[in-house]
Amino acid sequence: MPTDPDAGMRRAVVLLSGGLDSAVTLALARAGGLECHCLSLDYGQRHRAELDAARRVAQALAARAHTVVPVDLRALGGSALTADIAVPKDRPEHEVASGIPVTYVPARNMLLLSLGFAMAETIGALEVHIGVNAIDYSGYPDCRPDFLAAFEEAGRLGTAAGARGRQIRICAPLARLSKAQIVRAGSNLGLDFSLTLSCYDPAGDLACGRCDSCRIRRRGFAQAGVPDPTRYAAGASV
Amino acid sequence: MPTDPDAGMRRAVVLLSGGLDSAVTLALARAGGLECHCLSLDYGQRHRAELDAARRVAQALAARAHTVVPVDLRALGGSALTADIAVPKDRPEHEVASGIPVTYVPARNMLLLSLGFAMAETIGALEVHIGVNAIDYSGYPDCRPDFLAAFEEAGRLGTAAGARGRQIRICAPLARLSKAQIVRAGSNLGLDFSLTLSCYDPAGDLACGRCDSCRIRRRGFAQAGVPDPTRYAAGASV
Repeated sequence: MPTDPDAGMRRAVVLLSGGLDSAVTLALARAGGLECHCLSLDYGQRHRAELDAARRVAQALAARAHTVVPVDLRALGGSALTADIAVPKDRPEHEVASGIPVTYVPARNMLLLSLGFAMAETIGALEVHIGVNAIDYSGYPDCRPDFLAAFEEAGRLGTAAGARGRQIRICAPLARLSKAQIVRAGSNLGLDFSLTLSCYDPAGDLACGRCDSCRIRRRGFAQAGVPDPTRYAAGASV
Repeated sequence: MPTDPDAGMRRAVVLLSGGLDSAVTLALARAGGLECHCLSLDYGQRHRAELDAARRVAQALAARAHTVVPVDLRALGGSALTADIAVPKDRPEHEVASGIPVTYVPARNMLLLSLGFAMAETIGALEVHIGVNAIDYSGYPDCRPDFLAAFEEAGRLGTAAGARGRQIRICAPLARLSKAQIVRAGSNLGLDFSLTLSCYDPAGDLACGRCDSCRIRRRGFAQAGVPDPTRYAAGASV
């Protein structure tokens, strides 16, 4: 009789984008012995490669399940990642991660967390893991720890679990790490970074190397002293 | 040159389900002189009649726009409204609106509000109107005023608007009204209730008359002394 490899494990919902941060978050949760139910949003992003990366990561890290929920945010517009707004390239260093970038998807993490809480309620999980990071993404208001704390409180008051005295917690293990620290954590856990995709504007499987996300990622590998397996498009400055 | 009838009006997002409560909420917002951008969720509900009702209501009340966002919650399961769980009928009176009903959609209002905030950010609105009601739906944790207050705070911290000092407010004008008071408010505003659909389990355009939602609605009309234009299926007890 086959045994259930996840028997007796604590259940967690892990929000998975296909990028480096959420992959490290999943690797940490798996290393912590959690039964991981991954959730990705198909929010009409311009590049499906992101969802393909999420699928690869969930499989490689032996997630218990991976659910992709279609939420078509193109109807709302408002971001370079969902509407026809150009992704900025080669911005001066001081502009990267300052101010609110055009790649900010309005209320994206609220939406992700809402779905995460909905899934947690449904499967009886009491934690939702999210790979937000307040250091490199200080321009995104929905990556900040005080937002996460307030959302967790809303969740305690607004869910059936909370009403029964079982609070769903938000776990954001990368919140206060630098990208170099995140890369090192993933490297220590044996994560195959080549499965992940961080680029805002990839050409097929190739990262552009020039958007904010690529530049923060490249610098993270360089500062961590970890080889960067990312395949960049020709012409991407190093 | 045609003049814009909404010129100079304050903008609001109004969450519209097609039911009686959200229709009265929209009627109140319109009566208050707001330019209303309605948002409905196509969350894979079993009955499309609900979305048809939302469209009729938005049009009848001259909403500025009506956006339907597909969010397929069937992938998550967990509710009689999205999964293959039977809608309870003819429950004893003391069970109606007590406990957390199987028709509770996990974290539905969190999700609705998240999308409402996303839309508000996108169109520059500073209010999101929602027709929740804590009297008749005391069993739904996400209808309670303390949940709404906590979510509003999360929104202040987690949106670009909030980061710029422009807080998006949640308006829940029905929160503390009884169903009879809601019916009276709609009646005073001339709302055509026949456009709305509250039933959890309609047959085509006909309401079942027996689910919790139908029974609360019928009692509301009776207590308000307002004629109930709802068309009920044959066999619905009166």
